[in-house]
Amino acid sequence: MSKVVALAGGVGGAKLAHGLALAGADLTVVVNTGDDFRPMGLHVSPDIDTVVYTLSGLANRAQGWGIEGETWSFMEQVSRLGGPTWFNLGDRDLAMHVLRTQRLAAGETLTAITGDFAARLGIASRILPMCDEAVATMVRTPDGELPFQDYFVRLRCAVTVEGFRFAGIDNARASDEVVAALADPDLSAVIVCPSNPFVSVDPILSVPGLRAAIPKSRPIVAVSPIIAGQAVKGPAAAMLRDLGFDVSALGVARHYAGWIGGLVVDTRDEALAASIEALGMKVLLTDTLMKTDSDRERLARETLAFAERLGGAP
Amino acid sequence: MSKVVALAGGVGGAKLAHGLALAGADLTVVVNTGDDFRPMGLHVSPDIDTVVYTLSGLANRAQGWGIEGETWSFMEQVSRLGGPTWFNLGDRDLAMHVLRTQRLAAGETLTAITGDFAARLGIASRILPMCDEAVATMVRTPDGELPFQDYFVRLRCAVTVEGFRFAGIDNARASDEVVAALADPDLSAVIVCPSNPFVSVDPILSVPGLRAAIPKSRPIVAVSPIIAGQAVKGPAAAMLRDLGFDVSALGVARHYAGWIGGLVVDTRDEALAASIEALGMKVLLTDTLMKTDSDRERLARETLAFAERLGGAP
Repeated sequence: MSKVVALAGGVGGAKLAHGLALAGADLTVVVNTGDDFRPMGLHVSPDIDTVVYTLSGLANRAQGWGIEGETWSFMEQVSRLGGPTWFNLGDRDLAMHVLRTQRLAAGETLTAITGDFAARLGIASRILPMCDEAVATMVRTPDGELPFQDYFVRLRCAVTVEGFRFAGIDNARASDEVVAALADPDLSAVIVCPSNPFVSVDPILSVPGLRAAIPKSRPIVAVSPIIAGQAVKGPAAAMLRDLGFDVSALGVARHYAGWIGGLVVDTRDEALAASIEALGMKVLLTDTLMKTDSDRERLARETLAFAERLGGAP
Repeated sequence: MSKVVALAGGVGGAKLAHGLALAGADLTVVVNTGDDFRPMGLHVSPDIDTVVYTLSGLANRAQGWGIEGETWSFMEQVSRLGGPTWFNLGDRDLAMHVLRTQRLAAGETLTAITGDFAARLGIASRILPMCDEAVATMVRTPDGELPFQDYFVRLRCAVTVEGFRFAGIDNARASDEVVAALADPDLSAVIVCPSNPFVSVDPILSVPGLRAAIPKSRPIVAVSPIIAGQAVKGPAAAMLRDLGFDVSALGVARHYAGWIGGLVVDTRDEALAASIEALGMKVLLTDTLMKTDSDRERLARETLAFAERLGGAP
């Protein structure tokens, strides 16, 4: 059984992580927490929540985030009471936020709390926040800096992006659990999930000590979140464009060049393969759109096999 | 229009307060907060919530507390995640607790927050917590002291009561708003609702400065929460018994003797009227069981007319 560390953001990352679990990998998912925020004083970790709900089978499959069969009584009453309504919190989903907030206030780490929730929901994989310290992804725009959720939810990404800052990152450090997962002598690969390179993967890699903890002797393979010039979900395509990258798997490859050994690219982007390999990485062409569980598992298996063929990083 | 201050606990108190509002009284309800507690880190004020839901028409009429059409998704998920489940928090109800907790943490007073919620729900009456400081009703039992909600919800009142302590009361004080309502020159009466004398009304009267702020020149009338030897709801009858009082309106009268000028007693307890009047108060005999809105309004009108006949306290 392959021992794998996957780096993941929300929906796309959670799907491939689920595929890796379905494929039987001994999986540790290191999850972005730069999007964490505190609506109404509750600690919400959107990417952790999405990974937990996806791996436990609770996820709403149609929308990719949230819980299947969710109800919305809480937000209706929040609205009546004049509370903030720009970010929707479902009634079931609230349980994670309320319990997490209480346990953090009592001094537990986000790592310990997340591990406990995952275990209680029957998840065999380890789900680790990228760090236990607060890090806040800030989006630089022509009109100033915005907290990520303001950009993503409130403004629906409808502003030009000039760059990012991970506030608090200097006070963060790779947790013992993340370092241990990466240092495991049986680790066979690090998989960079098809998550947003700028606001999901980069925050993880920016945690002091984390990138250095990835062993040079193991293959690092990314799966492109861009298919045929479009992001499957979220603002990755707009960010590539705004930041002057090609809006394609080639743009993703340029962002990761020098670090990853291989990129999994959708067959619709076959024409880019030579240009991507010219950057010093191998390309695997396959169908990367994950609609069903079997899509997730197949892509995971192909990615693992690709990593095995690659061996150590370039 | 009569200007009235009502002292109230939860369900029974809320019903008479609703009746007073329906009767057209210019009403201020001073509500017990000794039952407040923080399940999962959320500030719950059970009596304030019941009064707010009842006066706004949101209340679940069958059970007397909570919200009509409540859903329970949150608690189902809390249970899955291993959180505490001994106290049920409905999905709609949660909005008040989450927003209150956040606003208290931001430095607002419980008085200001409660007033804002009441206004947003269309309540014309003023609803005031008995004080803005934390007071915790502790129940003395043969096995030691219990926080009120442990006694009331977790143990379902199934222990012998030896007495009460209102922890924190020495640091509390009657708020400016409560003092102003009682000092209003147009105040026509203080109504003690049919709430538990020991754990609803006594905490209010124990707030330093509050009892002294009740003008001697105005009638104080209580409505007995005991009908035919039984409490309409809650542990009042068991407490009277355990503490050595008659389990009757006479026991209630003895507890309030020397302070109230009149007691409204159910016609089923007519036989007690002479003994109660011998304690130095007047008795109004009427049907005190409030099943419908018109019961509430009729009892309120009769109580107000009784107070008017009484004039100033004895």
